[in-house]
Amino acid sequence: MEPTKYKVVDQEVIKQLQERFGADNVWMEEAVLREYGSDQTEDLVFPPAVVLKPRSTEEVSQMMKFAHEAGVPVVAVGARTGLSGGILNVHSGIALSMERLNRIVAIDEQNLQITVQPGVVTQVLQEAVAAKGLFYPVDPSSRGSCFIGGNVAENAGGARAVKYGVTKDYVLNLEVVLADGSVIWTGANTLKNATGYNLTQLLVGSEGTLGIVTQIVLRLLPAHSHEVLMLVPFYKMEQAAEAVAAIFRAGVVPSAVEFMEREALDWTLNYIGEDIGQLPEGIQAQLLIEVDGNYPDVLFAEAEKIAEVVGAFEIDDILFADSEDQKNALWKLRRNVAEAVKSQSIYKEEDTVVPRFELPTLLKGIKAIGAKYGFRSICYGHAGDGNLHVNILKENLTDAQWQQAVPQGIREIFELTVALKGTLSGEHGIGYVQKNYMDIAFSAVELELMKGIKRVFDPKGILNPGKIFPDASGH
Amino acid sequence: MEPTKYKVVDQEVIKQLQERFGADNVWMEEAVLREYGSDQTEDLVFPPAVVLKPRSTEEVSQMMKFAHEAGVPVVAVGARTGLSGGILNVHSGIALSMERLNRIVAIDEQNLQITVQPGVVTQVLQEAVAAKGLFYPVDPSSRGSCFIGGNVAENAGGARAVKYGVTKDYVLNLEVVLADGSVIWTGANTLKNATGYNLTQLLVGSEGTLGIVTQIVLRLLPAHSHEVLMLVPFYKMEQAAEAVAAIFRAGVVPSAVEFMEREALDWTLNYIGEDIGQLPEGIQAQLLIEVDGNYPDVLFAEAEKIAEVVGAFEIDDILFADSEDQKNALWKLRRNVAEAVKSQSIYKEEDTVVPRFELPTLLKGIKAIGAKYGFRSICYGHAGDGNLHVNILKENLTDAQWQQAVPQGIREIFELTVALKGTLSGEHGIGYVQKNYMDIAFSAVELELMKGIKRVFDPKGILNPGKIFPDASGH
Repeated sequence: MEPTKYKVVDQEVIKQLQERFGADNVWMEEAVLREYGSDQTEDLVFPPAVVLKPRSTEEVSQMMKFAHEAGVPVVAVGARTGLSGGILNVHSGIALSMERLNRIVAIDEQNLQITVQPGVVTQVLQEAVAAKGLFYPVDPSSRGSCFIGGNVAENAGGARAVKYGVTKDYVLNLEVVLADGSVIWTGANTLKNATGYNLTQLLVGSEGTLGIVTQIVLRLLPAHSHEVLMLVPFYKMEQAAEAVAAIFRAGVVPSAVEFMEREALDWTLNYIGEDIGQLPEGIQAQLLIEVDGNYPDVLFAEAEKIAEVVGAFEIDDILFADSEDQKNALWKLRRNVAEAVKSQSIYKEEDTVVPRFELPTLLKGIKAIGAKYGFRSICYGHAGDGNLHVNILKENLTDAQWQQAVPQGIREIFELTVALKGTLSGEHGIGYVQKNYMDIAFSAVELELMKGIKRVFDPKGILNPGKIFPDASGH
Repeated sequence: MEPTKYKVVDQEVIKQLQERFGADNVWMEEAVLREYGSDQTEDLVFPPAVVLKPRSTEEVSQMMKFAHEAGVPVVAVGARTGLSGGILNVHSGIALSMERLNRIVAIDEQNLQITVQPGVVTQVLQEAVAAKGLFYPVDPSSRGSCFIGGNVAENAGGARAVKYGVTKDYVLNLEVVLADGSVIWTGANTLKNATGYNLTQLLVGSEGTLGIVTQIVLRLLPAHSHEVLMLVPFYKMEQAAEAVAAIFRAGVVPSAVEFMEREALDWTLNYIGEDIGQLPEGIQAQLLIEVDGNYPDVLFAEAEKIAEVVGAFEIDDILFADSEDQKNALWKLRRNVAEAVKSQSIYKEEDTVVPRFELPTLLKGIKAIGAKYGFRSICYGHAGDGNLHVNILKENLTDAQWQQAVPQGIREIFELTVALKGTLSGEHGIGYVQKNYMDIAFSAVELELMKGIKRVFDPKGILNPGKIFPDASGH
């Protein structure tokens, strides 16, 4: 599907780019290339040959026209917070940075919608709509730095997905520049749409391989006024996982149910230097549970119901966060787990997702597989969605183990995930690092359909090549 | 894209079908063919040459293999309640009735999911999960007879979409038989999924043109215990439309906001012989508004807030339905509007959808366009979603007016809809009767992408030909 060789970005190409788009749009310093050739995925770096920083949809379109004619690969780059290597420039082509497309185009208070360019930081978007009494619920841990465009590319989730859904559930319409520079809108600015194929949903999560998103229309909710947050310490890790399904069966839909293994918690407390009190001896995991709404009495009633449900398991005292400071401290803790783990060891992060009742089985399986292949893992994640992040630590493993045994173990983890009717990625995407496991989730027929779609949108294969689809030499 | 001529279903084809699938699976009586060649769309009838009634995915697969090899067109047929002519067998091919695939495969109470075959009636599904304390919120007016498979094919909505979303928001995973008989699953049984392209969402709403859905995995919610329902009579039609956006801006998310013109209401009351009291003189429209949840006090507070918002407009006394009987009577009224209008006159129904604040503009525009072209329309629909059903009445129009002037008027209505950032269909699909308006919603480039996708899934063009895409001779 993809050419084996692309047009090399040589001096002639660079000269043409500078002439067409201005020298201040074209970046080539080595440090910059390295920067735009890596994200938060392991220690991988694939620098582009050149970085372009378009200032408008029209410029993106012109740049794509150029790349399409020349046959140069193009990777759209956001805030480089990705965890699957989506922006790695594996064929040394053009990195198209979206950072200058960072405008909130309009907040439509009448229709509860926002139109933004892709380079807007997710938290900036959240705060802009909050100032108008509105709510954009999708809340990835990296919200302080990630771009909304990256959220769309990877179909990002986060802590509140369990009640509010993920990015795809808010995207109404997208302006997209296609591989050949054509500009399209995928749908309409409506809550319902049964008009032709759902190009909008096809583009969300397509990781920059089908087109470059240049405008995003999102639906918003009215803001709510209250949250109640509670931290529940479990003596047995698997009981924490079991309790998750039990909460929903009791009829409560919390706005977050986050799972953290003991070690993830200890490391994070240490990493951020925060004090939330001593973690009792023997605690193996915690659940951070939030309910939200406009009526405090209802939230207290729901929190009480949750306390009743988790009380049936072996737990220690529940911590109720009642001040804003306490709530912020707990959320800061949760948001920093990934960073804290990263500070301890090189690691590979998998983004397994299963139906939530299968979490205990998945967790037990992951530990057993780790024991078999000799690696240690730290697990945490969005338990309400059945979305468990598995951090496999390099620690004292030899390079040979890291490159041979660990991928075999990961393969077994994914096989277990799929056997439990789950899949490879809940919210990080497949990108570069998971692509050679795609055969576990999809049959050859299914992968061929996806490749066929890719060819329709990008017949020359210039958009983010080397992602999602297994290498020809892959498993 | 589609062949101009398909293999004709002749005696030889029939004989082969009977040999392969048994005579009791192959139907050819003329009355049956007419039945399976029409749905609820106007008075259109396009009979198939033969009806097949498969009893398993495997049989669907074998039938598709046969059709694919022979080059015979195939239309999957559900309960024939569609309003866009999706099942019209315009090339006299095979009608593949899903009626025998009517099993609830499993209700997973641990994960709040249900797996069903496509021939399950939506209300049967709703009641089966309600019996277990669970809730499937998508609620098309035809729920008593429509199939869940048809809901998936058309991305059906209904009254509760405004709070709970439409069919696509509940579909997690689909088993699909492709044009050549291959069987695939589109995704995984998980709440989140960032693994490859979203084939699930691409299939939902694709109107039987990309594959035949044979199993559907839906997510469910915990059931709630209470609803409050209110009927608000407005003296000015446009104020009723204006009030809709005002309710949401006040921070309330009702579970239904239904709009009905006076005449629709009068006709329906008469049609169903129900008495909800006299409609005051001068009332032009009504809003039926529902809030739902587990805490009656909260619902009363929300109902009060809504009463306050609508009280700022020219309204008559609000009717609060407090008994189950009264609620059922009001919902019966709403569900029967389409039937009641149908009993009055031949009509064309359009399924316009706009951002909800644009409803008054749309409504005013529709009336003006009707006046210009000399037709009368009755409007009602899911105002909370901006989804307005426009019933254009034939009444005393000549056939020439009906065939010339009315389609021109419809074209203007759709142009207005799209200018308001809306689109052609909110929940009925494009099917046969709206396809020649698709150029209003989509550019040639956008339509070419959709056609490209169609070719990937169905290279021979045998799946439901003559739908969605404009005729070559179209506008």
